[in-house]
Amino acid sequence: MRATVIHGPGDIRVEDRPDPRVEAPGDAVVRVVRSCVCGSDLWPYRGVRETTAPHPIGHEFIGIVEEIGSGVTGVRVGDFVIAPFTHSDGTCVHCANGITTSCVNFGVWGGKSTDGSALDGAQGEYVRVPFADGTLVAVPEQPDATLYPHLLTLADVLGTGHHAARSGNVREGSTVVVVGDGAVGLSAVLASARLGAERIIAMSRHGDRQDLARRFGATDVVAERGKDGIAAVEELLGGIGADSVLECVGTKESMRQALGATRPGGSLGFVGVPAGEPELPMPYLFSRNLRVAGGIAPVRPYIDELLPDVLSGAIAPGLVFDLTLPLEQVADAYSAMDERRAIKVLLDPGA
Amino acid sequence: MRATVIHGPGDIRVEDRPDPRVEAPGDAVVRVVRSCVCGSDLWPYRGVRETTAPHPIGHEFIGIVEEIGSGVTGVRVGDFVIAPFTHSDGTCVHCANGITTSCVNFGVWGGKSTDGSALDGAQGEYVRVPFADGTLVAVPEQPDATLYPHLLTLADVLGTGHHAARSGNVREGSTVVVVGDGAVGLSAVLASARLGAERIIAMSRHGDRQDLARRFGATDVVAERGKDGIAAVEELLGGIGADSVLECVGTKESMRQALGATRPGGSLGFVGVPAGEPELPMPYLFSRNLRVAGGIAPVRPYIDELLPDVLSGAIAPGLVFDLTLPLEQVADAYSAMDERRAIKVLLDPGA
Repeated sequence: MRATVIHGPGDIRVEDRPDPRVEAPGDAVVRVVRSCVCGSDLWPYRGVRETTAPHPIGHEFIGIVEEIGSGVTGVRVGDFVIAPFTHSDGTCVHCANGITTSCVNFGVWGGKSTDGSALDGAQGEYVRVPFADGTLVAVPEQPDATLYPHLLTLADVLGTGHHAARSGNVREGSTVVVVGDGAVGLSAVLASARLGAERIIAMSRHGDRQDLARRFGATDVVAERGKDGIAAVEELLGGIGADSVLECVGTKESMRQALGATRPGGSLGFVGVPAGEPELPMPYLFSRNLRVAGGIAPVRPYIDELLPDVLSGAIAPGLVFDLTLPLEQVADAYSAMDERRAIKVLLDPGA
Repeated sequence: MRATVIHGPGDIRVEDRPDPRVEAPGDAVVRVVRSCVCGSDLWPYRGVRETTAPHPIGHEFIGIVEEIGSGVTGVRVGDFVIAPFTHSDGTCVHCANGITTSCVNFGVWGGKSTDGSALDGAQGEYVRVPFADGTLVAVPEQPDATLYPHLLTLADVLGTGHHAARSGNVREGSTVVVVGDGAVGLSAVLASARLGAERIIAMSRHGDRQDLARRFGATDVVAERGKDGIAAVEELLGGIGADSVLECVGTKESMRQALGATRPGGSLGFVGVPAGEPELPMPYLFSRNLRVAGGIAPVRPYIDELLPDVLSGAIAPGLVFDLTLPLEQVADAYSAMDERRAIKVLLDPGA
């Protein structure tokens, strides 16, 4: 098969790789119908995270089940499936608690499983899926191709934005600030609107992202940052910070921004992968009674909650994709996102 | 009046101070019926926190309203009242949000109000209470003296333990670990039991405190600390940490203990005043999807929730008091707590 391999900073190639096959009774092999590039893929691309050896990359895909192992009962050959960005067994205590990202049988596509075996990347033609019953979600009917972008967001960004909103305690009537205008931040705006937030302030300096934020339900946009950004938020909210602030970047600066925009007694939901080592200042949290929650999003259980709204068209999260390229042009997809010419790029292995 | 003044480490004196009087229309003057010594009072007593100038001390009291200003409508002369450890106006946006400890008109007894005026300490005969309507809670009837210790816990420790439990998301059926066996930690055990926790593990190395923890609802006691303590907790809970861990100390070590005892996706409630600068490691929180919440407890609204259970005898939080002394012996009260001869000392200004 053809699949994407990262060799080092700026070095993304599509190569011939062995066709995946069922290796264990719980495996499925899925033919990838659509994949995409994630903001976190840019970290090794930019050299922020080191690539010690070439490896497959990409962790978001939807596709069709091609083959199943003898132990698989939850999906059948021919099913159209959504794959969360991690595999999980669905049966351990952490899965039972809804934290599939802490599953004892865990792995991220393109990385390694907890048993040490290498996993295919999602930016390719096929993926072997261990623990298929715990991992894959079959769409009830074969979806129309117009739904593909929206369904693909369930693999990561929509679930991650939803995790930010849930962790940040967004509810009916909440005031919300979203820090970060990438695909996850925009998805957090959408998720907040879906949960009934009354006021949603998107912090963004880019016109196209501001427009999409408003389309997703943002009531206000704040372009300022730092102290000016906090002052602008407080002016919009009658002199105090927001009930809920969603941190969707992961830098020290964005966390500081988020902490400053949270009202006393408010909640900060974080899903930005911590870059470097931002730490949370206890005395500040203590004096203001802040609640801070979040992490790597357990999107698997969220798919059950969000899929009906995607299928019904109640939400259109796939609008975060503003460029579609064939798999063979994946290097262009990375550079377009790196240079901010695209918010998020959809990849079509069949094109 | 007679009132306690701290002059420096180990130097606690009862002195003659001016009788408080109504200074503003919203003031009340309360005659103190019972006061007590808090674990946090030991910080300046031990020199951990500097005492730059002598000042009145003590922040927990119950008493009888002696005089009210012309603007006070919520309490009447003769009412038996509970005073939270902070005053608050009850009308600002933060009070409306339930975070009375962030009130724009805030002050802690023995310290200064936000307008800069000095506040009487609670370890004395009388206290002037600004914003009496927002601050004081009148008990419906004159309580029997046997209820005094229980009512006094509503001023701080019971509300603070309850805040730990609420912040730590304790609910029906939860597994809970309480780090800290002082009066607040013991109150957190009681609050967790009241909220329906199924399993409550008290971390304590002192026999008398272990006994009281069990009486308050602890199902298990773990005497080990550090990695051994975490291992003991996990052994009790089937291999994982607790749903809720309540940090009731405030040191770097106790926070590390609490973080280590929280299961993936679990909640950590903290009410221990941060000593030094423990900071929260973001990558750890992120990878385990932890929720961390807490701070200086807004006990004023909690009194409404907890008072009925105190009056009915459903809970007996005043058992944390294991020594009662007359006000004139307040120095003995401090040394008894400093030397761990007492968990918490009740002071009787009328004795």
